[in-house]
Amino acid sequence: MAKTTKAGPVRPGGTIGILGGGQLGRMIALAAANYGLKVHVYAPDTDSPAFDVCAATTVAPYEDAEALAAFADSVDVVTYEFENIPHVTAEILARHAPLHPNPRALLTTQDRLAEKRFINGLGIPTAPFRSVDTVQDLSDALDALGTPAVLKTRRFGYDGKGQRMIREGDDLAAILAEFGGAPCILEGFVPFEREISVVAARGTDAGFAAFDPCANEHENHILAVTRVPAPGLARETGDAAVGIARQIAEALDYVGVLAVELFEVAGPAGAARLVVNEIAPRVHNSGHWTIEGALTSQFAQCVRAVCGWPLGDSSRVGGLDVEMRNLIGDQADDWRTILAEPGAHLHLYGKGDARPGRKMGHVTRLVRPRES
Amino acid sequence: MAKTTKAGPVRPGGTIGILGGGQLGRMIALAAANYGLKVHVYAPDTDSPAFDVCAATTVAPYEDAEALAAFADSVDVVTYEFENIPHVTAEILARHAPLHPNPRALLTTQDRLAEKRFINGLGIPTAPFRSVDTVQDLSDALDALGTPAVLKTRRFGYDGKGQRMIREGDDLAAILAEFGGAPCILEGFVPFEREISVVAARGTDAGFAAFDPCANEHENHILAVTRVPAPGLARETGDAAVGIARQIAEALDYVGVLAVELFEVAGPAGAARLVVNEIAPRVHNSGHWTIEGALTSQFAQCVRAVCGWPLGDSSRVGGLDVEMRNLIGDQADDWRTILAEPGAHLHLYGKGDARPGRKMGHVTRLVRPRES
Repeated sequence: MAKTTKAGPVRPGGTIGILGGGQLGRMIALAAANYGLKVHVYAPDTDSPAFDVCAATTVAPYEDAEALAAFADSVDVVTYEFENIPHVTAEILARHAPLHPNPRALLTTQDRLAEKRFINGLGIPTAPFRSVDTVQDLSDALDALGTPAVLKTRRFGYDGKGQRMIREGDDLAAILAEFGGAPCILEGFVPFEREISVVAARGTDAGFAAFDPCANEHENHILAVTRVPAPGLARETGDAAVGIARQIAEALDYVGVLAVELFEVAGPAGAARLVVNEIAPRVHNSGHWTIEGALTSQFAQCVRAVCGWPLGDSSRVGGLDVEMRNLIGDQADDWRTILAEPGAHLHLYGKGDARPGRKMGHVTRLVRPRES
Repeated sequence: MAKTTKAGPVRPGGTIGILGGGQLGRMIALAAANYGLKVHVYAPDTDSPAFDVCAATTVAPYEDAEALAAFADSVDVVTYEFENIPHVTAEILARHAPLHPNPRALLTTQDRLAEKRFINGLGIPTAPFRSVDTVQDLSDALDALGTPAVLKTRRFGYDGKGQRMIREGDDLAAILAEFGGAPCILEGFVPFEREISVVAARGTDAGFAAFDPCANEHENHILAVTRVPAPGLARETGDAAVGIARQIAEALDYVGVLAVELFEVAGPAGAARLVVNEIAPRVHNSGHWTIEGALTSQFAQCVRAVCGWPLGDSSRVGGLDVEMRNLIGDQADDWRTILAEPGAHLHLYGKGDARPGRKMGHVTRLVRPRES
């Protein structure tokens, strides 16, 4: 099939296709609507949260070549809200419409092994790692990396799913059996002081705009709190983190929003303190603070980038400090208390079932920086 | 038919029904989505801008009793984005779901004669006026009020439609014939210095929250620019304007967002300088600046009010000055230039046809106040 002839910027009134119907797709759709764009969401689940805020929907599996082609034909550009889609899906879409970020970025970042090799290939450190397919691989990897170490599936992991800490004396065969034969990676332990992330965008004109680096705290492997600016993060280290995000985006010829998660380790301020944990080829939970906290939100920035528009100003609003807290499971039951709190910005995702560990919404608070 | 049994606050996951599918309905729908609510939009036109951002739509005339009842039955609360709906429509809706603002507020504010009598009944001045149905009425009214004066239809007017300036020596019979027998009102000329408006909300708990009064400039009878704070407006006068909005809201037992347009005339600072022009029982164009300029937007505030939730903080963000400019007709062609302007917030409404005089979008700019 011929390559799409759709080219050049999407005009207001045009249609963005979004693969995936969760809260990220929903918030991209809301940002697109604000610019007068229509949105078509493709997702396998009939009750996808993004379906409630878009002009058109397709309910079909990510493997349905015919539905994918029809979807891509009906839109001006396609983007995605999560990276765990089959590579062949990306290839089908890209034949029918511009796909941003590009299939190579998707292929590289959806596989922990390919991603780490790519990052190291740029001269940027990651945790030490070994590919693991067999018990012998795992045993060798533990000999090389020591314990504790973390065994992860190469693909389809999120929020701590598909990973397990390994300690001295564990039963390796039993552990590997839990992973059901999925290709894995063993990552050596990184004694980090802080987890930070850089959410940034790159446009079709190679323009680049990063939001301020933020500090992230996790609970039960799920992001709990993001703070901007990252408390205690030296300016040189933050700048180096942004530089790493830019280097990655450029190497992937990236168009769209990406998030780079990093560990800050001991060392002199600057790049020496940074180890990349992972790359998300999409808008990211640690960027939700930008909705109220930055002049352009990560979702608006994503729309601008994939439409071929100039990127927006990513500065923080009024120089205020920002804190974003996820509402996980029944934490969202506090919605009325949060609504009554002056200046708290409540976001709920329209999910019906508040299962434990499920991201139901978030709340963002802007505060004047303390005198330093 | 029995009164609805729907009572108490709407919960996240519930559905707001919006009557009217223009940009105001669209922006209410976007705000509702942010709170995890579903939206059902009822509008007569198949290409209504709000249809692109909601979970359910009804396309039917405002006179279709059956469709109205089914619509109201399907939602938890109904609000509206414009006041020119038949009173019987409001009554049908109110039998099937809570309707906010209430039918009396709608009835009072959709008729210029009833509205002015209501306002004067509160002891608040308006332009002098006379009811006009015949040429004799018009002649008598001109004798009483002098020229120039403005003849307006009592209902269905907006953006200068349904009104005409009358000067000394005009052919009264010919002018009245232009109005095709519609009930009219003659308004005496008010020599105003400034046009301001107060956008405010009142909740089901009688809580009240006003946004800062803003100054409005019109071009060709259409709002062109809104500025906050209103340049030159004395604090006492602004406070008096907010007091008037509150008095009106309380007298109507109002729930929702309303806008009160006022003329500022010569006189000592305070209420003596204020004459009410008109009331809009809904979110208002002069409140669009609140999306980025206030801690809670007028659309979020509308959702909170009609859902029975606590009102949000209506303060301006970071004490910044705000300017909102409408993009009328082909002014929206400048979208790309506006996108490239640092800190400019572009909003487009997804309307296909940029007819002259049509509101296609708006742009909001926040700036640090000049040193005074």
